[in-house]
Amino acid sequence: MLAGVTDTHPLPAGLSLEQRASLLSGQDFWTTTALDEAGLPAVVLTDGPHGVRRQEGPFDTIGIHRNVPATCFPPAVAVGSSWDPSVAERIGTAIGREARALGVHVVLGPGVNMKRSPLCGRNFEYYAEDPLLAGVLGAAHVRGQQAEGVGASVKHFAANNQETDRMRVSADVDERTLREVYLPAFERVVTEARPATVMCAYNKVNGVYASQHRWLLTEVLRDEWGFDGVVVSDWGAVDDRVAALAAGLDLQMPGNRGVGDRRVVAAVRAGELDEAFVDVSAARVAGLARFVGAAAGSSGVAGGFDVDAHHALARELAAQCAVLLRNERGTLPLLRDARVVVVGEFARTPRFQGGGSSNVHATRVESALDAVRALAAADVPFTPGFPLDGAGDAAALREEAVALARSAQVAVVFAGQGEAEESEGSDRETLDLPAVQVELIRAVAAVAPRTVVVLSNGGMVSLEGWHDEVDAVLEGFLLGQAGGGALADLLYGVANPSGHLAETIPLRLGDVPSSVDFPGEQGHVRYGEGVLMGYRGFTTLDRPVRYAFGHGLSYTTFTTSDLQVVATGEDTARLSVTVANTGDRAGKHVVQVYVATSAGPVRRPARELRAFTPVVLEPGERRTVTVDLDRRAFAYWDVREGGWVVPPGSYTVQIGASAVDVVASATVTLVGDDLLPALTLDSSVEDWLGHPVVGPDLLEGFAGWLPDLPPPTTAEGLGMLRMVGSMPMRRFVADMGASVPADELDRMVARAATARAERVARP
Amino acid sequence: MLAGVTDTHPLPAGLSLEQRASLLSGQDFWTTTALDEAGLPAVVLTDGPHGVRRQEGPFDTIGIHRNVPATCFPPAVAVGSSWDPSVAERIGTAIGREARALGVHVVLGPGVNMKRSPLCGRNFEYYAEDPLLAGVLGAAHVRGQQAEGVGASVKHFAANNQETDRMRVSADVDERTLREVYLPAFERVVTEARPATVMCAYNKVNGVYASQHRWLLTEVLRDEWGFDGVVVSDWGAVDDRVAALAAGLDLQMPGNRGVGDRRVVAAVRAGELDEAFVDVSAARVAGLARFVGAAAGSSGVAGGFDVDAHHALARELAAQCAVLLRNERGTLPLLRDARVVVVGEFARTPRFQGGGSSNVHATRVESALDAVRALAAADVPFTPGFPLDGAGDAAALREEAVALARSAQVAVVFAGQGEAEESEGSDRETLDLPAVQVELIRAVAAVAPRTVVVLSNGGMVSLEGWHDEVDAVLEGFLLGQAGGGALADLLYGVANPSGHLAETIPLRLGDVPSSVDFPGEQGHVRYGEGVLMGYRGFTTLDRPVRYAFGHGLSYTTFTTSDLQVVATGEDTARLSVTVANTGDRAGKHVVQVYVATSAGPVRRPARELRAFTPVVLEPGERRTVTVDLDRRAFAYWDVREGGWVVPPGSYTVQIGASAVDVVASATVTLVGDDLLPALTLDSSVEDWLGHPVVGPDLLEGFAGWLPDLPPPTTAEGLGMLRMVGSMPMRRFVADMGASVPADELDRMVARAATARAERVARP
Repeated sequence: MLAGVTDTHPLPAGLSLEQRASLLSGQDFWTTTALDEAGLPAVVLTDGPHGVRRQEGPFDTIGIHRNVPATCFPPAVAVGSSWDPSVAERIGTAIGREARALGVHVVLGPGVNMKRSPLCGRNFEYYAEDPLLAGVLGAAHVRGQQAEGVGASVKHFAANNQETDRMRVSADVDERTLREVYLPAFERVVTEARPATVMCAYNKVNGVYASQHRWLLTEVLRDEWGFDGVVVSDWGAVDDRVAALAAGLDLQMPGNRGVGDRRVVAAVRAGELDEAFVDVSAARVAGLARFVGAAAGSSGVAGGFDVDAHHALARELAAQCAVLLRNERGTLPLLRDARVVVVGEFARTPRFQGGGSSNVHATRVESALDAVRALAAADVPFTPGFPLDGAGDAAALREEAVALARSAQVAVVFAGQGEAEESEGSDRETLDLPAVQVELIRAVAAVAPRTVVVLSNGGMVSLEGWHDEVDAVLEGFLLGQAGGGALADLLYGVANPSGHLAETIPLRLGDVPSSVDFPGEQGHVRYGEGVLMGYRGFTTLDRPVRYAFGHGLSYTTFTTSDLQVVATGEDTARLSVTVANTGDRAGKHVVQVYVATSAGPVRRPARELRAFTPVVLEPGERRTVTVDLDRRAFAYWDVREGGWVVPPGSYTVQIGASAVDVVASATVTLVGDDLLPALTLDSSVEDWLGHPVVGPDLLEGFAGWLPDLPPPTTAEGLGMLRMVGSMPMRRFVADMGASVPADELDRMVARAATARAERVARP
Repeated sequence: MLAGVTDTHPLPAGLSLEQRASLLSGQDFWTTTALDEAGLPAVVLTDGPHGVRRQEGPFDTIGIHRNVPATCFPPAVAVGSSWDPSVAERIGTAIGREARALGVHVVLGPGVNMKRSPLCGRNFEYYAEDPLLAGVLGAAHVRGQQAEGVGASVKHFAANNQETDRMRVSADVDERTLREVYLPAFERVVTEARPATVMCAYNKVNGVYASQHRWLLTEVLRDEWGFDGVVVSDWGAVDDRVAALAAGLDLQMPGNRGVGDRRVVAAVRAGELDEAFVDVSAARVAGLARFVGAAAGSSGVAGGFDVDAHHALARELAAQCAVLLRNERGTLPLLRDARVVVVGEFARTPRFQGGGSSNVHATRVESALDAVRALAAADVPFTPGFPLDGAGDAAALREEAVALARSAQVAVVFAGQGEAEESEGSDRETLDLPAVQVELIRAVAAVAPRTVVVLSNGGMVSLEGWHDEVDAVLEGFLLGQAGGGALADLLYGVANPSGHLAETIPLRLGDVPSSVDFPGEQGHVRYGEGVLMGYRGFTTLDRPVRYAFGHGLSYTTFTTSDLQVVATGEDTARLSVTVANTGDRAGKHVVQVYVATSAGPVRRPARELRAFTPVVLEPGERRTVTVDLDRRAFAYWDVREGGWVVPPGSYTVQIGASAVDVVASATVTLVGDDLLPALTLDSSVEDWLGHPVVGPDLLEGFAGWLPDLPPPTTAEGLGMLRMVGSMPMRRFVADMGASVPADELDRMVARAATARAERVARP
């Protein structure tokens, strides 16, 4: 376990300022600076998150080429769709083992940024458009990896939700939105799984680089969440090294030949930077280095890992990630002896991971075509259907595919996004599949008795223009090096689909809430949709979608019954619900628990995912699942209170087959927080009159001080209140009558403050 | 003319500080402070904007009751739909005459705020969701009113787009959005029509009360737009009198018994406020008072106005405001001898204006039922159909209506919003008509051979749930006291409908771009949709609507042909287009000119209204219309340049039957602005390499300084550029190689700056 990593050890005595500062940046692209004289070895960090990307030979300044082979596990886009923390944890474990075998101490991952827009070019590296789902999966990944003695680096902290202008753009986000949507996945990973490191993002947040954002890196991350590991920069994210250090960024990566360290030393010498910042951060990096030394000494694993076993694991897990979106007329699973034809270049040339820093040199790659042929009892003809690179004779390829499809019982079309269209470093401009593929699907579907579409894509693609014409759609995302086998297993029912969408498939890009401002312009991206990101927006704004967050079919059927919810405290509840497998094969069901409420002074999303539990059920099996919902399941972030608030009121707990398909619901009333609003002379007339403590007295006072004022109990008074109810009391009094005694109001403010203080005291 | 009003006269000599300060607030609710010793009379201001709301008797502190009768002209919601500045101007003229007759010097209006959300409770007082349309109409209103010697007050400046928490809420809007959407209507009114006063809004803009927003009230309004009249507070909008004065707010209304004036005096005496602020603002108010004295002296009108003539005018103009949304099977106009039945309480009890400060005590009110009966050659039975107040037996009323409708050839159903549902002071919560009305419409449509729905509503209502079941829809909005007659004229073809929608009718509230954040919460409303407000959003985001901005039918038909566009300068163009009346009756057509472009570094709306011209055409008549498009028709606000920019490129001029129905288009290429981007070490690697002046040299330099770097002409180099292209140059150099000479980069920055300065020089 990595518990030791995150304890801050005192620095060895006697280190010079220069030596201490040297710990604050890498000695090259992939390692921290060793201090042999202090017994501190270099720490090797490499890219992840879905496999170890260990660079061969000398670590050059570019650091993107020539990697040692390692298993390419399903990327996060797939793991997110598993809705199963055991999938994430087992991947973490396997990566941890490979890292140890490859001499790597920290593998950079997981990425838990939100999929704010389906256009984000790096969405394949992220889990979900929901922070609970991403946080639970990310924490599981970290647990698995760190249990193997290899540090994790949860990234990119924070609000790194696009690639356009990613090194400079300011994500302009209000605090409620940050707290409720963009930070909770990090918070969960940090508080539950204690990652060795947190990686700061490239971008700015509200105008300040994440790498030098003290509120993020220190106040929230350390002071509130208790993080005591190392904050490492994304590679090249440090803009002002001194400001970054003071904000809480410990380790600058990659090393820049001591440039940053020398600036730190100079700033200390010039009295511009407290030396304590150097000591604290250097001690944290030293803690990590000590752990590495200890881990290296205790490690029993070296000299390789079980390539075959990890490939098999990758296949098993990938099958739990794909999402069966549509399956009309029982088209899937395929019969072994069905006359199947396979169309589409991606069957032969798999898309299984994205481009950029996470690109793993896979130990092997399995094509779906080979795997399908291995499972089928009959010959499976194949034709590529479309040119991968956009060149070639698309019409001729399509005609060939149509001719083949005519002869089949089932045509399986492998479509998707080319690798060039999605990568770290740039965002996509459209959700559409390439036109040649859409034409191919339509042409095949027009002649084949049954048509199945298998999709390979890292970012979500639109199904419009062809969806209604095909019988089944299996969304494979990017499934890693064994994805081809997994897809074959799913097509033939060797495995039963159990994935669910971790992001919405919209009807139109313009329906996506973030489409009002993505990817921003002139250095800023405004998170204009606020908390209404992803399904929170679609459901609240009542916009129809093609497939909702949480949607996913199975080859068996499940029922949900007997939902019961009881309050277990003033702001907590427990639910129990019974799920049953009513079909004829084993399957994994996911209980999705949403909470809906209109309690409180802010607009709450129509519903929010507050818990989820995968349940494996044999045919005919039923099980009662119990879930505890904590305070946060009912809370919103109140910017006036500066904290989480559970308003008293009614909360509906909903079990959803997706974010729009509620299959059971039950309502619970919570006592909630016993808050009184702060009351000042800037509070509105309405706030004053409605205040439970001073409101009645004020009303009585008005009757005496302002006898001409129609009382708010009359129609005239209500009409007036409508007109001036939002006026600050100070102004109302100044404008309406000098006869309102100021000292009387001051006394009321004091009484309201006292009453408020008494109530806020509840822990 | 009011030219004199807006000249700043020196103050009379010898006034004490207290006397000067006393000019800065009202002496009561409706008048400014008279200074007889200085020959300055009191100025009487009253509410508008669609009629004179002159309070009777002593001006009390509430100021909302007992008004002198005056003509209630069509409110702005109707005038906006006329798309005809002559309608606005004639209303302004008539109001000016009534004001003079009633002893009023300034009538508060027009309101040119944008209809950001259809839920805004005060939308009936505003013209449009487009700033050009609102600005042209507002300027026409001011011209008409001020030509009669009565001052106008364009309001509410600025970003007052909701009623919820209106006295305190901060409208959080980025500058591009302010400049392109929320300010231009004010800008046009101020620069073209020189209103005597501008009224500041209640709300905050980006955290600062509009009443003390120096950037708005002084830098933009006066320094940029040249306003030299009086800035008056909305009634009760002054929060901090001293801060407001320093920001440019001249006149606080209503008077608050000298409280504000004494604070001003005290601040001057304490050295906290430059006395010059008092002098400048007092001189402006004095200028207004002097004008009043002059106008009163020269006025030839007194003792009344022609009530009958103004009522007739109100009817004539109202008929030009209603919008014929749907007219299947030639259902309208009605034949005089058709068997018509009228259903719906609004036919008998007209909704013709909104609630709140603009509520005029009408000289008379004409019901549509009476007017229909006057025009019909046969008996016209009537039944109320639904209870207005929600009480009563809705089912019985509906059954009665159904029975009546069965006997008719055409059933005309008058539906709409009750007065209580829309008013100043609160926003609406739904777009839906009351359920009893929807049920009524559906029930009537199910039995009547033809069904016409006539709508009366100040805020837009949804047509969903019944639209497809009726034959015709006439959207009457609120048409003023003679609206009933106007509706009858339109139904029977005495008048030909010529109104067009000034705001979108959405399919769903959640499709409205501002629905991501309206009306905000906890003191802030984020204008998250940015410039994509209203039709700009619907068109850009490709969201379908029920009826688009600009839509409106006629009883005749028009064609558009021969569109030609030529550049008339580097950033201007002229278009000509031929329109023809191809039907059999005279009608008014509106040529709607939109400009579409993707030029520049920001997301441009799919199209924006840049000109419009009403054209009255006899049957068979054709006319060629020429329109000059100025620089602003092609410009966007560039936050980096801090100004309007016309990027070089291609601009498509589109003639639209609405914002989504383009009937002709032609493209023109503009030279545009010859700008070079500013280049600093914070500029990105991509910006540097792409810079036309220094980019090539930098590339050459890199080849020498960083020989290991793959050149961006290779695939490897392009891949790397994708990864780090947005990195600031300073950081790239620091991280990638000390061998890049800093002085060389500094020289390039200087060269780029010189080149930029040379180009920016163009006026």
